[in-house]
Amino acid sequence: MSEIVFHQDVIEFSTRGHGWVTPLDERVAPIVARSGAVEGIVHLFNIGSTAAITTIEYEPGLVGDLAAVLNRLIPAGRDYGHEQAWHDGNAHSHLQAALVGPSLSIPLHDGRLLLGTWQQVVHVECDIRPRRRRVVVTVTGRKE
Amino acid sequence: MSEIVFHQDVIEFSTRGHGWVTPLDERVAPIVARSGAVEGIVHLFNIGSTAAITTIEYEPGLVGDLAAVLNRLIPAGRDYGHEQAWHDGNAHSHLQAALVGPSLSIPLHDGRLLLGTWQQVVHVECDIRPRRRRVVVTVTGRKE
Amino acid sequence: MSEIVFHQDVIEFSTRGHGWVTPLDERVAPIVARSGAVEGIVHLFNIGSTAAITTIEYEPGLVGDLAAVLNRLIPAGRDYGHEQAWHDGNAHSHLQAALVGPSLSIPLHDGRLLLGTWQQVVHVECDIRPRRRRVVVTVTGRKE
Repeated sequence: MSEIVFHQDVIEFSTRGHGWVTPLDERVAPIVARSGAVEGIVHLFNIGSTAAITTIEYEPGLVGDLAAVLNRLIPAGRDYGHEQAWHDGNAHSHLQAALVGPSLSIPLHDGRLLLGTWQQVVHVECDIRPRRRRVVVTVTGRKE
Repeated sequence: MSEIVFHQDVIEFSTRGHGWVTPLDERVAPIVARSGAVEGIVHLFNIGSTAAITTIEYEPGLVGDLAAVLNRLIPAGRDYGHEQAWHDGNAHSHLQAALVGPSLSIPLHDGRLLLGTWQQVVHVECDIRPRRRRVVVTVTGRKE
Repeated sequence: MSEIVFHQDVIEFSTRGHGWVTPLDERVAPIVARSGAVEGIVHLFNIGSTAAITTIEYEPGLVGDLAAVLNRLIPAGRDYGHEQAWHDGNAHSHLQAALVGPSLSIPLHDGRLLLGTWQQVVHVECDIRPRRRRVVVTVTGRKE
């Protein structure tokens, strides 16, 4: 029976406001390496309620499209109940983040994330101002 | 090597129809405590195809906004193929739930869910009538 | 202490273009059986950035409704930044897949997926042409 690994770490970075997309693959890889796990699951979670995690082809066209689509589906506005109570201008940020979701799990195989060639793990800032962000990375797997 | 824990339990509760949001954090905490796990992952899953799980700031404004946004993006209606076959008036409920998703995983650290200050785990009722709901909680982690 | 299982396998299948929905439950069951796990989590991940995984009631009406809703929310078009750079006609496919998400985890109990009676695990093709698809299945759990 091979040894089971649980390894948890945090990635920290800054975003520049709504629609800022941060690729996470290269930040996750050294955490996986340190864990020693070769097969299992890598779980990512954004701490906070106005950003999300998903996968997308990380190229400038789609990055801009993603921000535009989110704002078209759930636009900024003053009519939200959240605005009428809090007046902080980011009700749509909360709703966009709830729709896309704060969490993603990716399979780990031979010590690497199993992703498509054009598929990158990304953090999507939905808030309207630059934020300091923390993403928790939890590696669950086996050594060897 | 620390002991590995798998612990599974079910949370049961009632909802009051479309857009009813149930915070789950306080229901999950005692299950985590019983598991004995201090570091790992807590996985939540809604059994059934007309409700979803995500995170949001749980305050009355946003709770109302979330229901309104879901119904604006995917409104109730009789033109869905599902309605023409089944006439149960909840095709939009199925589609909303499929979009948001039935599942969420949250990191566990020092025996607690790692969430933001304004970030709560919530169950979102998408069905049009009150429902009895079951959410499966699976804790995977290590003791100590 | 019961034995811990990590088991990883790949499901392969073909899709027939946008909105093609492939039920995965029956393809996942034998992988779970081979793993020997009776309690834990089954994680599914679509390799590639133009398809998604979720749950829905798998019946022809809703399958058609899902494709229609995705194309209504995020329609095909030539105005996306991705199109202006790549001209491959599937910017909306990337965006739909990023919104729904490539990943799903389902609880495992008594050796079976814990799903609702009308809830099936499905792969949703968002690309505009038939594709050969691979979904990675990772079973994490305990025997007995």
